[in-house]
Amino acid sequence: MKVGIIGASGYGGLELIRLLHNHSEVERIDLFTSSEEGIIFSHKYAHLLNIHDQPLLKIENDKLAEFDVLFASTPAGVTSELLPPLIGKRTRLIDLSGDFRLKDPAQYKQWYKKEPAPKSALEKSVYGLTEWNEKAIQQAQLIANPGCYPTAVLLSLLPLLKENLIDATQIVIDAKSGVSGAGNKPSQMTHFSETNENTAIYKIHQHQHIPEMEQTISQFTGHASPITFTTHLVPMTRGILATSYAPANEGVTEKQLVNALEETYAHHPFVRIIKETNKFGTNQVYGSNYCDIHVRVDPRTNRATIVSVIDNLVKGAAGQGIQNMNVQFGLDQTTGLQQVPLFI
Amino acid sequence: MKVGIIGASGYGGLELIRLLHNHSEVERIDLFTSSEEGIIFSHKYAHLLNIHDQPLLKIENDKLAEFDVLFASTPAGVTSELLPPLIGKRTRLIDLSGDFRLKDPAQYKQWYKKEPAPKSALEKSVYGLTEWNEKAIQQAQLIANPGCYPTAVLLSLLPLLKENLIDATQIVIDAKSGVSGAGNKPSQMTHFSETNENTAIYKIHQHQHIPEMEQTISQFTGHASPITFTTHLVPMTRGILATSYAPANEGVTEKQLVNALEETYAHHPFVRIIKETNKFGTNQVYGSNYCDIHVRVDPRTNRATIVSVIDNLVKGAAGQGIQNMNVQFGLDQTTGLQQVPLFI
Amino acid sequence: MKVGIIGASGYGGLELIRLLHNHSEVERIDLFTSSEEGIIFSHKYAHLLNIHDQPLLKIENDKLAEFDVLFASTPAGVTSELLPPLIGKRTRLIDLSGDFRLKDPAQYKQWYKKEPAPKSALEKSVYGLTEWNEKAIQQAQLIANPGCYPTAVLLSLLPLLKENLIDATQIVIDAKSGVSGAGNKPSQMTHFSETNENTAIYKIHQHQHIPEMEQTISQFTGHASPITFTTHLVPMTRGILATSYAPANEGVTEKQLVNALEETYAHHPFVRIIKETNKFGTNQVYGSNYCDIHVRVDPRTNRATIVSVIDNLVKGAAGQGIQNMNVQFGLDQTTGLQQVPLFI
Amino acid sequence: MKVGIIGASGYGGLELIRLLHNHSEVERIDLFTSSEEGIIFSHKYAHLLNIHDQPLLKIENDKLAEFDVLFASTPAGVTSELLPPLIGKRTRLIDLSGDFRLKDPAQYKQWYKKEPAPKSALEKSVYGLTEWNEKAIQQAQLIANPGCYPTAVLLSLLPLLKENLIDATQIVIDAKSGVSGAGNKPSQMTHFSETNENTAIYKIHQHQHIPEMEQTISQFTGHASPITFTTHLVPMTRGILATSYAPANEGVTEKQLVNALEETYAHHPFVRIIKETNKFGTNQVYGSNYCDIHVRVDPRTNRATIVSVIDNLVKGAAGQGIQNMNVQFGLDQTTGLQQVPLFI
Repeated sequence: MKVGIIGASGYGGLELIRLLHNHSEVERIDLFTSSEEGIIFSHKYAHLLNIHDQPLLKIENDKLAEFDVLFASTPAGVTSELLPPLIGKRTRLIDLSGDFRLKDPAQYKQWYKKEPAPKSALEKSVYGLTEWNEKAIQQAQLIANPGCYPTAVLLSLLPLLKENLIDATQIVIDAKSGVSGAGNKPSQMTHFSETNENTAIYKIHQHQHIPEMEQTISQFTGHASPITFTTHLVPMTRGILATSYAPANEGVTEKQLVNALEETYAHHPFVRIIKETNKFGTNQVYGSNYCDIHVRVDPRTNRATIVSVIDNLVKGAAGQGIQNMNVQFGLDQTTGLQQVPLFI
Repeated sequence: MKVGIIGASGYGGLELIRLLHNHSEVERIDLFTSSEEGIIFSHKYAHLLNIHDQPLLKIENDKLAEFDVLFASTPAGVTSELLPPLIGKRTRLIDLSGDFRLKDPAQYKQWYKKEPAPKSALEKSVYGLTEWNEKAIQQAQLIANPGCYPTAVLLSLLPLLKENLIDATQIVIDAKSGVSGAGNKPSQMTHFSETNENTAIYKIHQHQHIPEMEQTISQFTGHASPITFTTHLVPMTRGILATSYAPANEGVTEKQLVNALEETYAHHPFVRIIKETNKFGTNQVYGSNYCDIHVRVDPRTNRATIVSVIDNLVKGAAGQGIQNMNVQFGLDQTTGLQQVPLFI
Repeated sequence: MKVGIIGASGYGGLELIRLLHNHSEVERIDLFTSSEEGIIFSHKYAHLLNIHDQPLLKIENDKLAEFDVLFASTPAGVTSELLPPLIGKRTRLIDLSGDFRLKDPAQYKQWYKKEPAPKSALEKSVYGLTEWNEKAIQQAQLIANPGCYPTAVLLSLLPLLKENLIDATQIVIDAKSGVSGAGNKPSQMTHFSETNENTAIYKIHQHQHIPEMEQTISQFTGHASPITFTTHLVPMTRGILATSYAPANEGVTEKQLVNALEETYAHHPFVRIIKETNKFGTNQVYGSNYCDIHVRVDPRTNRATIVSVIDNLVKGAAGQGIQNMNVQFGLDQTTGLQQVPLFI
Repeated sequence: MKVGIIGASGYGGLELIRLLHNHSEVERIDLFTSSEEGIIFSHKYAHLLNIHDQPLLKIENDKLAEFDVLFASTPAGVTSELLPPLIGKRTRLIDLSGDFRLKDPAQYKQWYKKEPAPKSALEKSVYGLTEWNEKAIQQAQLIANPGCYPTAVLLSLLPLLKENLIDATQIVIDAKSGVSGAGNKPSQMTHFSETNENTAIYKIHQHQHIPEMEQTISQFTGHASPITFTTHLVPMTRGILATSYAPANEGVTEKQLVNALEETYAHHPFVRIIKETNKFGTNQVYGSNYCDIHVRVDPRTNRATIVSVIDNLVKGAAGQGIQNMNVQFGLDQTTGLQQVPLFI
């Protein structure tokens, strides 16, 4: 397979390179850029010396159409223009940005403050939450790869909502993320001296991943209540831990919640249900494509606490993108994705 | 004033020394130990060279009674035995541990898994949440200094609950803490390589600060519903950020919540209400006695998100202890506590 | 005293505010800006709410001359133009930038790649390494406050060089710094995701503090050999640890080195000589104006390893600036600078 | 191949599991323990769920001899007793501890403060610095895998010393390490709150890796001068950066040093020579088996600064161990070791 990556300099792009480099079915990786044409990539990123020493290529539609699969890892507002001309060609398109996730262009405009992709293109995109949408992904040409937060949250909540085990009208989600989720562009928000030794809440009630989660909950479980969702920045590079709260429905036990999760993911290699732990953290999935989930019901309040962890750059971006590519091409889902978590 | 500190080697003790060293009314600080008698303190802690070069003293009841004020910063289960003999003497006692916080000995036993202090002693202790209990603190000999999490949570929730602005039956609190809250004793939980680059949830639904918060909410607002409370460890040394969620009551606006907070704390120097921010983090109180609070109502769900930050070692422990000492001795509350946050 | 600060938004400026706020002789602090006139400072920096809520002022020479003392904490190339008009007026000037440190304009141009201050102004500036230049500082109107690295290095090396105890021709200095030394302007170098979990060497042999150290060694000890100096960025916010290596001169013992340090600093409150330790780190001076020094001679090679630690923002910048102000105004050197190190 | 690991719970052991799990020639991995027999490994380490769910096995000599290769990743003083009975059997032995590195038992005793292995066993061990000892490693049954610091230092210095390009009598090495090098056992030294925001020097002139480096320099280059070596702990988990200093010999240019390094490692896939960089850090090898080297000559002092970085758990321990296993079994050196550095 020939793979092209648009936006290779971003962290999603770098992670695609890291993972695809050892993917047994990938024979060639080309990198595209809007502004750094000709630069030898390993001169910019020394960690890729001897790994990717080719120059960055200029984005040209003719060239792009030659690839078996194209990944885009660009800021919001880029692929909405870049990808539509490629729709209908043979190249599979996997978009790591948010441009094709929301089906309603008005919602995109409201939450992203940018012009949406054409409605016709949005209709053709398939949401790439692999464990829940495998059949559609197989057929799809254009994959809207899920956001990092939605991946962690949805994998943990969908089974419980689908089986009506928790109250869909009272969901509160408190998410914590490492700083790499903010990308490679320096800002005061990601400046070491102000991020280190600091845990901060940001974009309160206003994160653009909110409509993505609500749309997907509705799609797969039929529940349509708005959720409360907040995001926090913690002083680490990788990892998301999402803590979700909802009342267990009348008569529902902790065991039923665990069972629903275990049954849903029994044949899905990247979702692990963790039982009986008193320490559950992001480092248990560091550098890997796993999503680990842990659930407890508080007997005092009958409220369920559902916790999930992912590596935001792997299962929350590049890894899930490759998992979707594997599905599209009929490969085993785990091809190229069997990294063991680093833990330390 | 002559001040004694029991448990000086712990982080609460070290922080008391840091702050009391520059307290204008403190003329002498003596340190007591159960196991390291005679050790020159600055040989153990080089950062205190030229600041506290005296030897650690053996704990003896006669000696302890000579102090104007005694701070205890010891693990749970120590002061329940150590302090009762001093009750009724002239020495003011400020206990940073949890041993005198819960009025019900059975609750202490259940949550702390240790023997409680005698009921008669518990009855005499006064909960040291300064902003809410100032008059009782003035008179009290024995102060039960609040836990770090309860300080951050209660200061932000009490005004809203007291005025019935949020639904007391649906409170969810998601707290994040730096690692210093776990004290100075090494363990796997606080081992750098497993704590760094890791955000973890721990003690799910089982933290001993839960009954402390419920008791205090009941005491000051009359509401008696159980709360859902979870705690997370984030890779930083100092700081707590508590994110609390509750539906705003029928017809209540964000402005009313802000007003309630502002009015409650108008004359309290250490509580600051922050408005209109998109970045609210623990570093804005680092090293200081401030508690900063920010509140928002999500118009989509009518749920309030209430965020508060403290330095767990200052307002969450030693600083609030000194604030209480100031109240007991009729000093300005801010004496010795005017450190500006480090921020960076 | 009325104090003005130019460049208040930078980290040197913020640290001046933190320390001066509790300085007993300072009655007023005004902040000047080149580009943010009128902004309420605590709107920009929430940690200063209730501490500094005044607007930033426009820089105007007439206004500047009204202050008892003016601190400048600006990037290189600013004060070389800004301060000369104020020379000769009554306002004491303390420049935290490098613009007045090098006596030779050609050297400034070579190392800073900018236009130097006028030679006449350079001649009037006094190097503010307090412990070594106290008398000149008392008289000086214009203080060139030392760089952060030179402060840590010079305080540890000057006593040994002055007494000819180590070989001045073979000095190698390996310095490690926290990221705050790079200031508050975001860049790839200070971007959290690329700085965290990374120790890096930078500006090899090319750091602009090299000529400053050589000039000062020559001034105070007469030795004029070039030094080898490298700088490393470690993933923490505050702190410098400088490890210097030089052969002990013929027959010189470790004890003699320790004695030379102890005697030199016997009456200097901010320099502490640490003996017999197997752990010597930056956290023992965190947030304080101390410089701690530790020295060992390796019996196998007869080479001395001289280690010193400072908080780069305090003793390495704002703290030493205030120490110099105290000297200029005949105050006790420790006024406003008695913060105990945070350690944790 | 059947692989056994003794000391699997340690960080060296965990890293062996991480890397060997995806090694194409390894069909089975068994884990041995001295004290936790029967424990399911993924119950202890949740990150290994579905990856290694077998119980820990008791160490028994008969069982150990059945493996094709045995890795030992144990504290000093364990393998000196454990491995000698296996010498002469068919099982290849790769010892990640220091017990078989020093040929002179007296030196081991002096630096490790423990009883050395029998001299006969020491004589049979082969030092596993793969790039320098490949032929001996091919034949060896017992490999003494190099220490983490020596790996970083020796790979960068040996080529320059061998060709007499730098002065072997004046070598100063300043090494900085992440905390994982201290292993998984909690201590005050590795306690998060005292390690975070702290850079510290430790074991000054007394690190047990000193004789290992001197012995190897002597073995491969003939130079026998003692070196000055210091070690620093920086607040990160993985990575070593070693900065070495030595005068360039008369007439030697920077270009010659670069050439010597490039020529030496032209056919060695894991050593990369980095040219023309102004940022050289540990994150460029994070999680990989690379050793990156950068060298500069200071024209002002004619002193060379030689910098090298490794991931201490990979090239500094488990990775190099597997590289040696590959050599012993005639595999391509890179088998199972082609991980791309994580960088972020």
